[in-house]
Amino acid sequence: MIARYSHPQMMEIWSEENKFNNWVRVETAVLRAKVRVGFIKVRVPKNLEKKIKIDISEINRIEKNVTGHDVIAFLMHTSPQLTKKLQPHWHNGMTSYDPQDTGTFLQLRDSVELLLRLMDGLEAVVRSRAIEFKHSPMIGRTHGVHAEPITFGVKLANWYDELRRQYDRLSDMHTKLSVGKISGAVGMYTLDPIIEKEACSMLGLQPIIATQIISRDIIAEYLSTLALIGGTLEKIGVNIRTLQRTEIREVQEYFSPTQRGSSAMPHKRNPIGSENVSGLARVLRGYALAAMENQNTWDERDLANSGAERIILPDASILLAYMLARLTKIINDLVVNTQRMRLNIGLTKGLVFSQNVQSLFAAKSKMPREDAYRVVQEIAQRCWDEDKNFVKVLLNDPRIKKVLKEKEIVDCFDLDSKLAHIDHIFLDVFGEEK
Amino acid sequence: MIARYSHPQMMEIWSEENKFNNWVRVETAVLRAKVRVGFIKVRVPKNLEKKIKIDISEINRIEKNVTGHDVIAFLMHTSPQLTKKLQPHWHNGMTSYDPQDTGTFLQLRDSVELLLRLMDGLEAVVRSRAIEFKHSPMIGRTHGVHAEPITFGVKLANWYDELRRQYDRLSDMHTKLSVGKISGAVGMYTLDPIIEKEACSMLGLQPIIATQIISRDIIAEYLSTLALIGGTLEKIGVNIRTLQRTEIREVQEYFSPTQRGSSAMPHKRNPIGSENVSGLARVLRGYALAAMENQNTWDERDLANSGAERIILPDASILLAYMLARLTKIINDLVVNTQRMRLNIGLTKGLVFSQNVQSLFAAKSKMPREDAYRVVQEIAQRCWDEDKNFVKVLLNDPRIKKVLKEKEIVDCFDLDSKLAHIDHIFLDVFGEEK
Amino acid sequence: MIARYSHPQMMEIWSEENKFNNWVRVETAVLRAKVRVGFIKVRVPKNLEKKIKIDISEINRIEKNVTGHDVIAFLMHTSPQLTKKLQPHWHNGMTSYDPQDTGTFLQLRDSVELLLRLMDGLEAVVRSRAIEFKHSPMIGRTHGVHAEPITFGVKLANWYDELRRQYDRLSDMHTKLSVGKISGAVGMYTLDPIIEKEACSMLGLQPIIATQIISRDIIAEYLSTLALIGGTLEKIGVNIRTLQRTEIREVQEYFSPTQRGSSAMPHKRNPIGSENVSGLARVLRGYALAAMENQNTWDERDLANSGAERIILPDASILLAYMLARLTKIINDLVVNTQRMRLNIGLTKGLVFSQNVQSLFAAKSKMPREDAYRVVQEIAQRCWDEDKNFVKVLLNDPRIKKVLKEKEIVDCFDLDSKLAHIDHIFLDVFGEEK
Amino acid sequence: MIARYSHPQMMEIWSEENKFNNWVRVETAVLRAKVRVGFIKVRVPKNLEKKIKIDISEINRIEKNVTGHDVIAFLMHTSPQLTKKLQPHWHNGMTSYDPQDTGTFLQLRDSVELLLRLMDGLEAVVRSRAIEFKHSPMIGRTHGVHAEPITFGVKLANWYDELRRQYDRLSDMHTKLSVGKISGAVGMYTLDPIIEKEACSMLGLQPIIATQIISRDIIAEYLSTLALIGGTLEKIGVNIRTLQRTEIREVQEYFSPTQRGSSAMPHKRNPIGSENVSGLARVLRGYALAAMENQNTWDERDLANSGAERIILPDASILLAYMLARLTKIINDLVVNTQRMRLNIGLTKGLVFSQNVQSLFAAKSKMPREDAYRVVQEIAQRCWDEDKNFVKVLLNDPRIKKVLKEKEIVDCFDLDSKLAHIDHIFLDVFGEEK
Repeated sequence: MIARYSHPQMMEIWSEENKFNNWVRVETAVLRAKVRVGFIKVRVPKNLEKKIKIDISEINRIEKNVTGHDVIAFLMHTSPQLTKKLQPHWHNGMTSYDPQDTGTFLQLRDSVELLLRLMDGLEAVVRSRAIEFKHSPMIGRTHGVHAEPITFGVKLANWYDELRRQYDRLSDMHTKLSVGKISGAVGMYTLDPIIEKEACSMLGLQPIIATQIISRDIIAEYLSTLALIGGTLEKIGVNIRTLQRTEIREVQEYFSPTQRGSSAMPHKRNPIGSENVSGLARVLRGYALAAMENQNTWDERDLANSGAERIILPDASILLAYMLARLTKIINDLVVNTQRMRLNIGLTKGLVFSQNVQSLFAAKSKMPREDAYRVVQEIAQRCWDEDKNFVKVLLNDPRIKKVLKEKEIVDCFDLDSKLAHIDHIFLDVFGEEK
Repeated sequence: MIARYSHPQMMEIWSEENKFNNWVRVETAVLRAKVRVGFIKVRVPKNLEKKIKIDISEINRIEKNVTGHDVIAFLMHTSPQLTKKLQPHWHNGMTSYDPQDTGTFLQLRDSVELLLRLMDGLEAVVRSRAIEFKHSPMIGRTHGVHAEPITFGVKLANWYDELRRQYDRLSDMHTKLSVGKISGAVGMYTLDPIIEKEACSMLGLQPIIATQIISRDIIAEYLSTLALIGGTLEKIGVNIRTLQRTEIREVQEYFSPTQRGSSAMPHKRNPIGSENVSGLARVLRGYALAAMENQNTWDERDLANSGAERIILPDASILLAYMLARLTKIINDLVVNTQRMRLNIGLTKGLVFSQNVQSLFAAKSKMPREDAYRVVQEIAQRCWDEDKNFVKVLLNDPRIKKVLKEKEIVDCFDLDSKLAHIDHIFLDVFGEEK
Repeated sequence: MIARYSHPQMMEIWSEENKFNNWVRVETAVLRAKVRVGFIKVRVPKNLEKKIKIDISEINRIEKNVTGHDVIAFLMHTSPQLTKKLQPHWHNGMTSYDPQDTGTFLQLRDSVELLLRLMDGLEAVVRSRAIEFKHSPMIGRTHGVHAEPITFGVKLANWYDELRRQYDRLSDMHTKLSVGKISGAVGMYTLDPIIEKEACSMLGLQPIIATQIISRDIIAEYLSTLALIGGTLEKIGVNIRTLQRTEIREVQEYFSPTQRGSSAMPHKRNPIGSENVSGLARVLRGYALAAMENQNTWDERDLANSGAERIILPDASILLAYMLARLTKIINDLVVNTQRMRLNIGLTKGLVFSQNVQSLFAAKSKMPREDAYRVVQEIAQRCWDEDKNFVKVLLNDPRIKKVLKEKEIVDCFDLDSKLAHIDHIFLDVFGEEK
Repeated sequence: MIARYSHPQMMEIWSEENKFNNWVRVETAVLRAKVRVGFIKVRVPKNLEKKIKIDISEINRIEKNVTGHDVIAFLMHTSPQLTKKLQPHWHNGMTSYDPQDTGTFLQLRDSVELLLRLMDGLEAVVRSRAIEFKHSPMIGRTHGVHAEPITFGVKLANWYDELRRQYDRLSDMHTKLSVGKISGAVGMYTLDPIIEKEACSMLGLQPIIATQIISRDIIAEYLSTLALIGGTLEKIGVNIRTLQRTEIREVQEYFSPTQRGSSAMPHKRNPIGSENVSGLARVLRGYALAAMENQNTWDERDLANSGAERIILPDASILLAYMLARLTKIINDLVVNTQRMRLNIGLTKGLVFSQNVQSLFAAKSKMPREDAYRVVQEIAQRCWDEDKNFVKVLLNDPRIKKVLKEKEIVDCFDLDSKLAHIDHIFLDVFGEEK
């Protein structure tokens, strides 16, 4: 991933160095397992994992100039660092994809753990701001058009609920990705399965039946999950961008005193963070797609998935980490204009309460529901077109007056009753009233 | 494609009946070509194509119950309709994919022709409305935030220019799809190439080198082109939806007197056509993707592309035809509120002219450009936050007053000068001043 | 979905009629809920759901000619079928997306149930054939190149294991899709939440917090899951196609006596079912992609997802049902040539046991592992290039003879020891030894 | 793009340094254009472009700590390097996206030029090997099953023809991407259009109507074209992998003497280059998809495309350059086993000539074509199942003998006549007989 969208901890997980260190971990675990089950009789130094030093440039040199194969280059680099007695047992009975695939799944598991922490952080911020604005009314919009009032807290609660589902998906992936395989060249166990079991156990993994490789459906699900999460972040980003539109102006991304919005127009302050996050989600979808195509393995394995995975596994993981961190900050710092929210509710001069009027009128008029609807619709749309005050027009309309009393009409325009069930929503989402 | 999003003429092109008729056309063309080049000596009736009657249910019955192969079922159905003398030459020397692929490309070519006509219609409407609103000022928005004024005509001119590029892409596809092959089971020409040449010429096609099938890169390009066009329609749809937002309200999709926007809220009129068009573009991208994967043919062919194409070729062609027709109507009937456009320009009380102020101040102040920018930025953003009139504040700012005269400041807020180059744009886009 | 790839039961779930019937179910459940919680006092006939008759053409007529809105057309069609007393309460306090979205999720839940049954069927066949061929040796292939022996049963066991994971994913979706919402136009509960709870409970659904609509992340996950399953079917299809390659010929799709493989070449019998299934997976990925883009809802909803969903929800569900049914039949009827499998193991004249030789030679030679590898590699690749018998060459190689006894060499070529852990694999996958 | 899949020249085009240098080029071109058209009167030093030194870390520092805007950081870094007289005119009247977008299109144009050179190289190799193997017979395969003979040269000629089409697509992109815009913040020309025209002309670009940005349909087409090309490389890779299958063994990727194919199995030599290339095509499709979504610009621009483009434009361009270079080498070094190709033709003992037999038998027997087909099919499939020699069985079949003479039967098995039209194919593809 490009430097601009990097995330230091996630970069670390996907560094070349960490990749090789994970291979060391797997190879060493297998060595220890062989000893533990009595398959071989040697002494494995306690901190062997740390004694083996990885010189990436040396491994790359061997691969490029000699073997054309990265695991063998790694073995030629590490084996001489072992004692003579250990050397014959290093990687013996294993195939390249035993350390390589198990190592990849270690990286994936670590990635999920980091992403879960980042999601936790985002959720905490969304929750906190939801509670802050639980009772701040704003207009709900459908099709871009004013519908009925909600509160900004309820909007945030909806985001929170969706983020929780995403968290659960990712959390499921943690279990699903915690697998490893030491079953050899075609999954027939060159080494006894007990060694796989022991080694995996040391690594905190479950053994999984495999061909030469672990089936790619699991990785495809991981990348799909990342894309799904990206989709939620995109939606939140798009919603923030919308609320920052000049005509709406209900929220604004924090804008530092020295920041510039445009090289030409000094008045500009743009929701660039939210724009960035929503655009990057597109890239995640592309990665997910490649991972899905990667499911299609020939026979006991082919290599076509490998190159793609070298790109998309780190790039997708890093990119989502970046997006999560960025969106957390955006929402944390979001400038919210509750006054403007109230003003916007009134923009249509009462029309957003049309349902109340229509319901009451339908109930009291004894007209067929459809006919009652037509009456209110005609009035409402006339008010819209002529920018008239809905209550006033209703109060003067003979068809309405015949059915409804003045107080009944005016009561239809009560904001509070529209927001009566906030506590239910918050209880449902946050597990307790706030 | 589902009935709701069908397009009668495009449905006709992709009907089963038309498919079989195209096979008849190809088989007959080959028959005639064989005669013309002297390969066989028989008399082919003038209107043989029309004499052969296609009974789809009968062909399907044969495929299902007997052959498990559609072309052979077709042959078993059509061959008996020929004279005894012609029967041995019907399909002789050909492989199934000679009529099948050539027939598919005939359908694709016809689809392009229809789509081009539909695009023509859309462009005509966009052009006509561009000219209608050439001089109707509206605010230009970047990042959702007011930038500087444009006109609604200029916005439409930009759409038109993009649509023209899409038209050209599709027009190129017409040439690229006008290909056929009669080169037999593996492209080695069971029949002499001269027969392919003659037959293709009768069908208005160019012969193309092939394996058993014509390479799928061409079809992938077709579906990509459809997705690209979908992307433009989506953008236009999203822009209309934006302009119909309650807070912006500069345009409105036509809403019929008996129409309903919501079962609950009588005041609602939503841009459902534009929403529909923008959402359907997503489906087109999915089809394009499948077509790209279809490029990957094994050896001299495999069948994996076939099932996907039975779905995506008609579905994508029909869907885009539907979208084009729908968007044409939307733009044709679009209710445009030029008064509101003017009001919105003023919403920021002059801030959208900040570049003019900044440029002039920078030029006259002899301050470094960056420092000058800072001064104007500070004033502009203060006005934004406090909802103040930009001109007034400028006229009273000592830093500005020291450098600029009152008239100079006021002149910065001249709308007309912002729109001075409309003629250039229209000349560039429409080829003549309007 | 086109008729060729339809699945009758799944078509039924996604029929227009069933859609409207589900709306009736939801509307009626809400009506009953209102009564049960004491919100209204009317008598709801026991079998009201069945009394309401859906005339699709009539609903379509109303939508097209009058309302331009399908739910309102539905209401205008159904309401008159109720008693006068019930009419005012029908849909009262609800928004269109209360029945519409809840109805969609009912369809999705039914789809999952059907797909789970179809997967069950496929798994049963794969399991049964795995047990049948548990001890039928075949060569394992990596990179398309012979690696080491497996058995056909083990290959099938790997497929089974992957199918189980897919089943679990789908099964999780059943829970996740069993949700409904009766929370009104913007999710603020025009009706008391208790009514939503009661109504959902009658429908076997969990209430879920919503805006106007249920968040689309759930549907995106459903379509992704379908695409993931498609990826597994594709892989199985590709593997069958490979094994049916003329040069390999280890399996063959059933070919009926009257079937034809080619209109030109009478000898052809092609794996058309597997080709078909593997190609259709591409279309599923396209649908998943569109569903992911659909996550991006504006504000409390927009309509852009709706059109796409009308296409992709039924098409993806039907297509996968078709694929599952077809692959089940293919594997059930698959002609397996175990003799040929044995022959193919021997194709490289012993080279597929090179690891055994290399391991033993490395262990006994006291040479560094890398040098020992080089020796065996040199011999093995010479045998490959010159089509020589690996054992014979080894037995005559002085470097080998110096280290290994004849019996030791010959023992390296023992097939049974390569297959020693089959029971472990089967126990792991099928939960019991077979 | 990760180091493993980098391409030095393409990396250079997309380096941060080159990006900024292109901005310098654009800003300077505009400066010169202003002078040339008499808009300002200053002297612009001849080699101003080279005098301005880019210190990336300094620009990044300013962006990060001060402006939060890269173009302004760039301006703050470069402006002080100009003379006092020039400073006020530097970027004056321009918006960030004037240099930024025009600069991006310069990079895209340069990328296309490099890719065209790489495609030229690949095509030259394919052509040369096509001519080398023009007359080397091999079996053509459809559905993975032997069909009829072709030659390896014809296979390569088909690849060449497809590559030429891809070249033409890319070549068209060169023209389409050679555009620039200096039309200011919303495309209304803060500077006179004549300046855009002059500046673009200096840069070898055509001015294009724009909003703040050039419409993204062009970039989406570029990325789609790259994905389409990737699809062709994938297909070629998959075909090579197939031909290297152990059972087929007709070609082999070059394998260096010190190379290793497996850490476990010394006999392995795998087509890893072709596997790599075919897998990476999946990633290109993902990038294309993101680019298509990027078409959807809000109003006169939003920033959502920007982040994605920072990733996908370089990554896709570099990846394809890598793939082209790699595949060129693979095909150049490909070890081709023409003897094996001949052997494989005979694998089915004559069945691949079944069409000849069927045609002749149909013609002479006076049986209906379908009945004649049935006879030959029955014999052919029996031979297949029982591994019998097709000629022999035919010669002894009473139904056949009654109709065909021995010589007629034997003549059906003439390889040369199957390959009679090679010259036509080569003339068609390469423009001259070879």
